[in-house]
Amino acid sequence: MKIVIIGGVAGGASAATRARRLCESAEIVLIERGPDVSFANCGMPYFVGGEIKDRAKMVVVTPERLRTRYKLDVRTQCSAESIDRGHKRVRLRDLASGREYDETYDKLILAPGAAPIRPPLPGIDLPAVYTLRNLADMDRIKAAIDRGAKSAVVVGAGFIGLEMVENFVHRGVTTTLVELQDQVLPPLDREMTTPIVQALAAKQVNVRLSDSVVAINETPFGMQVVLKSGEAIATELVILGVGVRPENRLAVEAGLDVGPRGGIRVSESMQTSDPDIYAVGDAVETRDFRSGQPTQTPLAGPANRQGRIAADHACGRPSKFRGTQGTAIVGLFGRTAALTGASEKVLQREQRAYRKVYVHPAHHAGYYPGAEAMTIKLLFDPGDGRVLGAQAVGGAGVDKRIDVLALAIQAKLTVYDLEEVELAYAPQYGSAKDPINMVGFVAAGLLRGDHPQLDVTSILALPPEQRPFLLDVRASDEFAAGHLPGAINISVDELRGRLDELPRDRPLAVYCQVGMRGYLATRILIQSGFNVSNISGGYKSYQLAFPGGAS
Amino acid sequence: MKIVIIGGVAGGASAATRARRLCESAEIVLIERGPDVSFANCGMPYFVGGEIKDRAKMVVVTPERLRTRYKLDVRTQCSAESIDRGHKRVRLRDLASGREYDETYDKLILAPGAAPIRPPLPGIDLPAVYTLRNLADMDRIKAAIDRGAKSAVVVGAGFIGLEMVENFVHRGVTTTLVELQDQVLPPLDREMTTPIVQALAAKQVNVRLSDSVVAINETPFGMQVVLKSGEAIATELVILGVGVRPENRLAVEAGLDVGPRGGIRVSESMQTSDPDIYAVGDAVETRDFRSGQPTQTPLAGPANRQGRIAADHACGRPSKFRGTQGTAIVGLFGRTAALTGASEKVLQREQRAYRKVYVHPAHHAGYYPGAEAMTIKLLFDPGDGRVLGAQAVGGAGVDKRIDVLALAIQAKLTVYDLEEVELAYAPQYGSAKDPINMVGFVAAGLLRGDHPQLDVTSILALPPEQRPFLLDVRASDEFAAGHLPGAINISVDELRGRLDELPRDRPLAVYCQVGMRGYLATRILIQSGFNVSNISGGYKSYQLAFPGGAS
Repeated sequence: MKIVIIGGVAGGASAATRARRLCESAEIVLIERGPDVSFANCGMPYFVGGEIKDRAKMVVVTPERLRTRYKLDVRTQCSAESIDRGHKRVRLRDLASGREYDETYDKLILAPGAAPIRPPLPGIDLPAVYTLRNLADMDRIKAAIDRGAKSAVVVGAGFIGLEMVENFVHRGVTTTLVELQDQVLPPLDREMTTPIVQALAAKQVNVRLSDSVVAINETPFGMQVVLKSGEAIATELVILGVGVRPENRLAVEAGLDVGPRGGIRVSESMQTSDPDIYAVGDAVETRDFRSGQPTQTPLAGPANRQGRIAADHACGRPSKFRGTQGTAIVGLFGRTAALTGASEKVLQREQRAYRKVYVHPAHHAGYYPGAEAMTIKLLFDPGDGRVLGAQAVGGAGVDKRIDVLALAIQAKLTVYDLEEVELAYAPQYGSAKDPINMVGFVAAGLLRGDHPQLDVTSILALPPEQRPFLLDVRASDEFAAGHLPGAINISVDELRGRLDELPRDRPLAVYCQVGMRGYLATRILIQSGFNVSNISGGYKSYQLAFPGGAS
Repeated sequence: MKIVIIGGVAGGASAATRARRLCESAEIVLIERGPDVSFANCGMPYFVGGEIKDRAKMVVVTPERLRTRYKLDVRTQCSAESIDRGHKRVRLRDLASGREYDETYDKLILAPGAAPIRPPLPGIDLPAVYTLRNLADMDRIKAAIDRGAKSAVVVGAGFIGLEMVENFVHRGVTTTLVELQDQVLPPLDREMTTPIVQALAAKQVNVRLSDSVVAINETPFGMQVVLKSGEAIATELVILGVGVRPENRLAVEAGLDVGPRGGIRVSESMQTSDPDIYAVGDAVETRDFRSGQPTQTPLAGPANRQGRIAADHACGRPSKFRGTQGTAIVGLFGRTAALTGASEKVLQREQRAYRKVYVHPAHHAGYYPGAEAMTIKLLFDPGDGRVLGAQAVGGAGVDKRIDVLALAIQAKLTVYDLEEVELAYAPQYGSAKDPINMVGFVAAGLLRGDHPQLDVTSILALPPEQRPFLLDVRASDEFAAGHLPGAINISVDELRGRLDELPRDRPLAVYCQVGMRGYLATRILIQSGFNVSNISGGYKSYQLAFPGGAS
């Protein structure tokens, strides 16, 4: 058996080593266009920023290690030119010598990755306009800063864009962030990104949302990025982080099926439309675990697993990829934002029924020093309560809660299961009622009808005269420091004695700071015959949804 | 409806507030013997140690708050003397005035907690022999140290014992830890506690395992703790942390069923043998989630949930407690140890079939600075691979992995599911192949037969001549720095060329540092016809199981 693998980084390297472990006798050829295999993709921004100091650490495994330890025929700086499916052979080109030759295969695994998109703009090919795909790109960007560059424009506020911004700021580079959408981190819902925008502002990052680059000009005074809004920003370097496009040329030219967004179509076992050819990683179109819909999700974890699965199947094992959940995380100036499963906008796009709640717990017991705040947004099925998606933003402990919720989605658990989760509690680590329990309580209370909830955005989208009667149940000093437009204030502690001040002929929406007192007030009012809902997540949710206030 | 609740801390306070939210019209009486309700039980060692500085933070909710906000009839310093089930009334005693009176109930919820055990030893009642149950105990212990006590003996190396040791060391107190068993943290398996013992030793804590206190003497030169081993230790204070006993007097005298270890027997809905009387928290006998066996697990999380469930059921809702998993965690000098589900010794006691594996991953990507090591031990069903229990010890990220595994146990997931977990990966938070994936791969490889594994303790329990041929596949410098007794060394990179040096007539056990190279060596050797297993977790597992070496 002879397995040829095109692409030697995440998915390709995983496929190669897995195939070797399964089959000691196979001939395994690993083709990589660049000089490195299996490098630390996700660490590149941190090497630029100086957080990772040792360049050698960026190389996870050397070609030499793969040769001696895994008996792989590794060929770097070698490019795959074409596939001859009829004769089951690949045309290869040694990039140093220019020599071209054929290599036959029994099974071919394509792991070509995805290329950063370079929009066809004037000036896009200027030397100081960078993308970040491999270690050579990284070295070039770092060299520019080492040489003294003091200004940068990052185009695209996705995960990599934000990581570049953080690391530029660490290096003392004045940074502008340009994003076409009206929010950073487009995979998340907008209100969940407010703390990230605030963190950027606190570090003097110039954030330009709902804007885009129309040209990059070289002027006598240096480079200039021209925005659609008309502004021109002088800068020494530009980083493009506007997304990636599957490297599908080989596959397309060989007649393999690709999806509408260019991802190579594969079966659950990562087979392309030719059963002897597999494809894995950022180049493929897979399925969303929840919806079953096609998706292209360029993430390191799924790429590694897909490589493993392709090798399994090529070696005769019935291994299957269960689909991706899109679990992702980013750190920025001590803040963390993460998500797993569907966002609200995805569910809206699918026109799928859902409910949502917000909680704002501390990451560990409040009485123990150092508790950091977080916000969790949970999306779930309105019928059976199954968890559909979760997002969290805050400080320490965000990653832990998203990981637990990622497993809850995988296990198809419901909000009722989250109520019963038994997590590890000591005051440095969590709470007797963990944030996961809390979000379960709040969501299950909603579905049981015990705890009707409304969302602040929907309420304030109504004209004032159509809104429910807004009741703020916090203390008077909290109310005085800021409240929802048109709200009146009766503290929850006085509520039972002041019910006659409330209207019985229209709906009420109560709120407190985070939702707890609002919940109790809702219970008091329901049992007193009022038509009442709690505003999920209270004033804090308002502050996330309307950071500039609402009217 | 009138609900009387005896005990106002974790389970009792949860029951009271939940009952109020469900039923605004109920009369709810909360009886508490001490001066405080709902205090920060689990924070007490950290207040003694000075980590928590503000005494007010130790009171989570004041009686006054419960009165005004939750309309509860809170009576502190009030003791329940007896229950008259026939007339559905409780005899109460106001501790200040000594006045006794009856209170009727429709539903009674017992949340009396558990009392620290004071073994009947000579000197046990000396004033400087403390237990830690409530804030008054905490204040007394802290006062003794504030007055200048410089030495302490902590009896019992459970969770609270270790937390007290850590905080005494923070206060500069010379501390001895005495434990009857041959390990600290008896709920964990012994080998998993080795890093904790090492952390204690590094802080000059005098750890006395397999020993016990036989007497506490007052001498002209101060107090002296006499151990069974004969040693006498001079000390200024003694802390007893040898376990707790359910406070079941009221229940027993009322004729309610209790289990053999004293826990009040309850149904899934927390009803005692009298359907109008519930019991919750540390005083009850519940069920182990996995085995269905009766268990007494005094933990804050389950106590709170049970309080909620009892209130639900008393108010007419069909709420059920799913049992406890025994998830617990402790921090000690920057180390963390945690567990969820069954330990190996519990499975052995049950004579239940299981398999186990060890992995020693870093808590995040190794190329990113600050990766801390951890060890995970996973116990699972040998047939279907269902996760039965997990333990972890190490630095950062231990809590996250145990929480994910706690949910895996709740969801009845298998090791095959762990292979497919999609967790949040960026280099500061985890790895593309997270420790959870790794432990899934290793366990699933064992069950699939791809990756036969043996456990170092079982191998070294055999006389040398009956052991497998021990092959160390690490590099020669690693071998030279320490290896298993009798092992020979062939690096995995040379293995394919040196197969003729290995015996074909007896079993082989290979190992490396953590198990990865051993796995590859195992695959090479299996496919070359050898009878071979990998030693799970490699040399690191050996160092945990035999910290002093083996022969």
